[in-house]
Amino acid sequence: MSSHLGKVLHLTSFGESHGKSVGGVLDGCPPDVSLTEADIQSQLNRRRPGQSSLTTDREEADMVTIVSGVEDGLTLGTPIAFYVANRDQIPGDYERFRTIPRPSHADYTYQVKYGTRSISGGGRSSARETIARVAGGAIAEKILMEQAGVEIVAWVSAVGDIQAPDMDMQHISRGEVDQNLVRCPHAETAEKMIRHIQSLKEKRDSIGGIVNCVCRQVPAGLGEPVFGKMEAILAQAMLSIPATKGFEIGSGFSGTRMQGSEHNDPFMAAEKGLRTKTNFSGGIQGGITNGEMIYFRVAFKPPATIGLAQKTVDFEGVETILEASGRHDPCVVPRAVPIVEGMAALVIADMLLLQKTREQGLS
Amino acid sequence: MSSHLGKVLHLTSFGESHGKSVGGVLDGCPPDVSLTEADIQSQLNRRRPGQSSLTTDREEADMVTIVSGVEDGLTLGTPIAFYVANRDQIPGDYERFRTIPRPSHADYTYQVKYGTRSISGGGRSSARETIARVAGGAIAEKILMEQAGVEIVAWVSAVGDIQAPDMDMQHISRGEVDQNLVRCPHAETAEKMIRHIQSLKEKRDSIGGIVNCVCRQVPAGLGEPVFGKMEAILAQAMLSIPATKGFEIGSGFSGTRMQGSEHNDPFMAAEKGLRTKTNFSGGIQGGITNGEMIYFRVAFKPPATIGLAQKTVDFEGVETILEASGRHDPCVVPRAVPIVEGMAALVIADMLLLQKTREQGLS
Amino acid sequence: MSSHLGKVLHLTSFGESHGKSVGGVLDGCPPDVSLTEADIQSQLNRRRPGQSSLTTDREEADMVTIVSGVEDGLTLGTPIAFYVANRDQIPGDYERFRTIPRPSHADYTYQVKYGTRSISGGGRSSARETIARVAGGAIAEKILMEQAGVEIVAWVSAVGDIQAPDMDMQHISRGEVDQNLVRCPHAETAEKMIRHIQSLKEKRDSIGGIVNCVCRQVPAGLGEPVFGKMEAILAQAMLSIPATKGFEIGSGFSGTRMQGSEHNDPFMAAEKGLRTKTNFSGGIQGGITNGEMIYFRVAFKPPATIGLAQKTVDFEGVETILEASGRHDPCVVPRAVPIVEGMAALVIADMLLLQKTREQGLS
Amino acid sequence: MSSHLGKVLHLTSFGESHGKSVGGVLDGCPPDVSLTEADIQSQLNRRRPGQSSLTTDREEADMVTIVSGVEDGLTLGTPIAFYVANRDQIPGDYERFRTIPRPSHADYTYQVKYGTRSISGGGRSSARETIARVAGGAIAEKILMEQAGVEIVAWVSAVGDIQAPDMDMQHISRGEVDQNLVRCPHAETAEKMIRHIQSLKEKRDSIGGIVNCVCRQVPAGLGEPVFGKMEAILAQAMLSIPATKGFEIGSGFSGTRMQGSEHNDPFMAAEKGLRTKTNFSGGIQGGITNGEMIYFRVAFKPPATIGLAQKTVDFEGVETILEASGRHDPCVVPRAVPIVEGMAALVIADMLLLQKTREQGLS
Repeated sequence: MSSHLGKVLHLTSFGESHGKSVGGVLDGCPPDVSLTEADIQSQLNRRRPGQSSLTTDREEADMVTIVSGVEDGLTLGTPIAFYVANRDQIPGDYERFRTIPRPSHADYTYQVKYGTRSISGGGRSSARETIARVAGGAIAEKILMEQAGVEIVAWVSAVGDIQAPDMDMQHISRGEVDQNLVRCPHAETAEKMIRHIQSLKEKRDSIGGIVNCVCRQVPAGLGEPVFGKMEAILAQAMLSIPATKGFEIGSGFSGTRMQGSEHNDPFMAAEKGLRTKTNFSGGIQGGITNGEMIYFRVAFKPPATIGLAQKTVDFEGVETILEASGRHDPCVVPRAVPIVEGMAALVIADMLLLQKTREQGLS
Repeated sequence: MSSHLGKVLHLTSFGESHGKSVGGVLDGCPPDVSLTEADIQSQLNRRRPGQSSLTTDREEADMVTIVSGVEDGLTLGTPIAFYVANRDQIPGDYERFRTIPRPSHADYTYQVKYGTRSISGGGRSSARETIARVAGGAIAEKILMEQAGVEIVAWVSAVGDIQAPDMDMQHISRGEVDQNLVRCPHAETAEKMIRHIQSLKEKRDSIGGIVNCVCRQVPAGLGEPVFGKMEAILAQAMLSIPATKGFEIGSGFSGTRMQGSEHNDPFMAAEKGLRTKTNFSGGIQGGITNGEMIYFRVAFKPPATIGLAQKTVDFEGVETILEASGRHDPCVVPRAVPIVEGMAALVIADMLLLQKTREQGLS
Repeated sequence: MSSHLGKVLHLTSFGESHGKSVGGVLDGCPPDVSLTEADIQSQLNRRRPGQSSLTTDREEADMVTIVSGVEDGLTLGTPIAFYVANRDQIPGDYERFRTIPRPSHADYTYQVKYGTRSISGGGRSSARETIARVAGGAIAEKILMEQAGVEIVAWVSAVGDIQAPDMDMQHISRGEVDQNLVRCPHAETAEKMIRHIQSLKEKRDSIGGIVNCVCRQVPAGLGEPVFGKMEAILAQAMLSIPATKGFEIGSGFSGTRMQGSEHNDPFMAAEKGLRTKTNFSGGIQGGITNGEMIYFRVAFKPPATIGLAQKTVDFEGVETILEASGRHDPCVVPRAVPIVEGMAALVIADMLLLQKTREQGLS
Repeated sequence: MSSHLGKVLHLTSFGESHGKSVGGVLDGCPPDVSLTEADIQSQLNRRRPGQSSLTTDREEADMVTIVSGVEDGLTLGTPIAFYVANRDQIPGDYERFRTIPRPSHADYTYQVKYGTRSISGGGRSSARETIARVAGGAIAEKILMEQAGVEIVAWVSAVGDIQAPDMDMQHISRGEVDQNLVRCPHAETAEKMIRHIQSLKEKRDSIGGIVNCVCRQVPAGLGEPVFGKMEAILAQAMLSIPATKGFEIGSGFSGTRMQGSEHNDPFMAAEKGLRTKTNFSGGIQGGITNGEMIYFRVAFKPPATIGLAQKTVDFEGVETILEASGRHDPCVVPRAVPIVEGMAALVIADMLLLQKTREQGLS
């Protein structure tokens, strides 16, 4: 019962992977935000399968339609509903999973939780569900851009053991990120990653990876202590993305090895208010943004659906060998980049709107 | 406006560190759960300051009073309000922070967000706020224990560079954890940690650390896709604890370096339903528990308030040297153990109650 | 930002009257509830315009499509999205309202609130928005019927000054209600109502009315004190329907003239638990159902859009005469009957699911 | 699990009538609102029992203590917790209700819902619970007064058959309302009401009544379609008050007998925006305020607890005679006046804060 996210900017997500369509409803978007389907489509294109040799071969155009809440290219302040029709379904691909739950996939847990499940295409646990996140996030980005100039850029920083060097987070752009198929803006590392993913694809195996994200020009003062702290809701948003296993912000786990005297970010004078000399805090102190860059990392496990033979049992507990025959991603991180960006945008935009409730009076 | 957590089991938290009291209201607790103040007090005692030479010297008894929702040792099903009175306040300790925001503390961001703040004691951003979490969590544990036999145990696995070896998560108990001051159940490592913390305390510096947590006997089927997945809400809960910078579940960040063929947890027959041979998933697949142990790790940064001189600026941007004179923890992880346990209990209990809405009819 | 309703059974509504479609998403529906589009369509047919000479002449087939959440005629436990395409738009009808806000309509307040509005068709304030309520309510009814045998029947009890006599609430059925166009099950009164509505239609005027509703077989114990009491959420649900001005439950306003000794409902022994001899309480005591019939009345004002000339001002404040030329309902109550039923079903089903969280353990 | 109300301005209520205390937590109050306990106390004094010969003889001072969220007379923007200690408990008074559920009271339904209940004093279903409403409402009024100059005045318009004439809603003040014990500002009618209540008190019976309320200077544009319409949330708030049976706004039930040509409120030019010549709408059109006065009426049934002998059955179904011996109100409306005002303030203040989320950017 939790297919909705956000307090004021409220996203509802719907859709099984092989049903009629997947989509969502974004309620609470302020009026008069300029918005067209193209604004959403550009991010959906970065998410869609079949976009490169690194992703699944499924070809899905994933064209979005806005159904409500927008007129003459401007939002009305009413719920924005949107959907992407489902196509290219080969239910036969999934026939085996009817009786054999894929190891580390949601087949078993959905069945236990609901006593039923949509077998074809993984139903609601399919990565196809993330279309609502990317579309909703694209709208949230429009709000953030118009009202505060916020820029959000995510990229692949690791695939398996292959790690990219630190990027210049002040300047990294989506253009740079998209210069190669794997969305790692360090060309040399990207090449290694691509080769590694391709070799695993050939072996019918899969591999994990890490997506980094930076959010620039986020106004100071956003975040809702104590349970709605900015990093807390970002963590929820990121760990709700399929296949994620970890989240760290600012210094993250490596910050645990530092002393306070190193880790503390000293203040310095700035044009408006204060700034900090270092930014181990990742732009957030006490759950509230301080005006510095927010940056964080999200861990993605290797995709569960692989072609390699796996020794497991069927729903009845009888031992069997499972070889998935469908077309699946050997590594999700290249396609996860716009999803991470979208979730970050949804969270920050909600916090931006909430902070306005503290302004004096109505204009 | 987000001092509340949970959908059905709904915790509201209140209180500034140096106001009259801190406390909370837990709404949605089922009726007829046995509950006394002692059930809560035992966890609060593990959280309270001054409990050992490793923590701040402030002495706070932190005795809890239940105000409502309980009669004759049983819950009524109505809101359970509770509080701990504040004592031992030395507002003078905080006088310096009136004009100089502590680096990496919430002084600056609270001021920016609200245009005001409770200066004495850090107000709402103080660790004292976590009393509501520990108390609410202790009640949630009673629900979980009575209805499903769930056991939750957290411990310190790292202080700075000092890391404990892997523990036997099937059997680790709070008794073992509490055998030393630092709450690391590996005696040899604990000793090193203690010495390290004490040396930093003497240097008026601080250090970060990691808390691990395991949740056993969690029923399969809990978690609310797609935004209320079990790991997502656990991540929110953990990252809402003061001083946290990261969260990883199951294989976590190290899982990103694995291949699907290694990482997948094959199923095997069990007495009831299926079990998995390995548990890289950390007990959760597709956001829903599978009946295996949930385990995760939480990263805590070094406390921001240190006695060492820090070069920074005051609120006006004028350079200054800050030397905190108050009594502060050199390392938060020993006291964070019951907080992590409490937050885990609140999340899992909420999910347990939500899952009941899918049962057929009323009994 | 409040196009959603319900705590566990969560309805999101979307759609402008002249956009692509109107629809909704119902999250939290338990799995394995039998559901087809026909289940929804039958109630939508009772709501649709053009169904009789008493309603607007607009012809809208209003065929519903279920997009997700249902497979093989059974719910999956995942969000059920549905929509009805918009047709038969004559935007020209609305051209005048671009500059002249209709008296007592939402044209002016939408413009003030959002600084913009969907002019054509009244946008979100159109009665067309109620399609989501009727469709969501039809699903809620399936839950209530399968899990508890709840029956909900609404009817028209008054049109202007014409009032129907009291009905036999124990037995009144939708079949009886639908025996005439005005949905008043008392034939003689219905005839008067019909004549009255038709005469007002000819005069290009409109008239108000009252819808009564009874909910039978509602289990005892439903309702969530203190702010989610059954009557409170029913009142919210009913007063959220367009054109409503009042709600009364049980003895209602007439109960204010009674003494406690008359008004109190004495208990008597029953097969299971107790029952009451009288039912001035309307099936609810202390916000919780007692197992007796819930019954209530909803007041609808006369529709604001009338053809008669009205002296008013345009948005600039310049005096003008407004004569609406569109096709509008002279009286909304006949079509409001399934809307009231739907909202009641949504509220009671949510309360039914919430009450399960108090059951002992998981089955 | 619904002891909380409001989306941004979020009130949590706690407390059994004979527990340690009753109180609440108001989260989401903007910072820098001037607030002292005296601001709350003045409304609590109008609510407290024993204030006159018309109310119960129980003497409860009901002094409020603010625990958090306020420093130096100004709100901090953090949760404001407050409580009133319980006193003057004579549990013996309630001994009879242990085995005999009072007709039309919540004794039976609480027992069925929770399987247990606080017998002494009615527990959570006691009118004592309304202290949190009045206190929270008093804080909401401070917000409304400072940010928008909103004035809210309620009064008793009917006791049993005795009805007051229409009041001048533009000018009626709390001072006038409080000129007599029954809080009906029409002196002659008030006298009749007082005599009627006193005669019923002597007869150990009780009587119902109606409270009217006007809200002036409410800015246009407040209310959250489609489920959070202003009148919908007001209706929820009012029907959540104990003993209420009905709510009508603007023309209410009498508006159902009018034709559109009479009922429509024509617009006219005003200094800022438009105003309406009449106000049958009650200040709300399409769920959104239009800047005119909001006015509504709330129906209260006669109190269920009466001294007169009642033929009923005990929990086992055995016939018995119940004569309540406690001290109870013969009529609740005089004390309900500040409760209605408080609930109205909470609702309108929440809507005011929500509307700010539509402003452009942060100041």
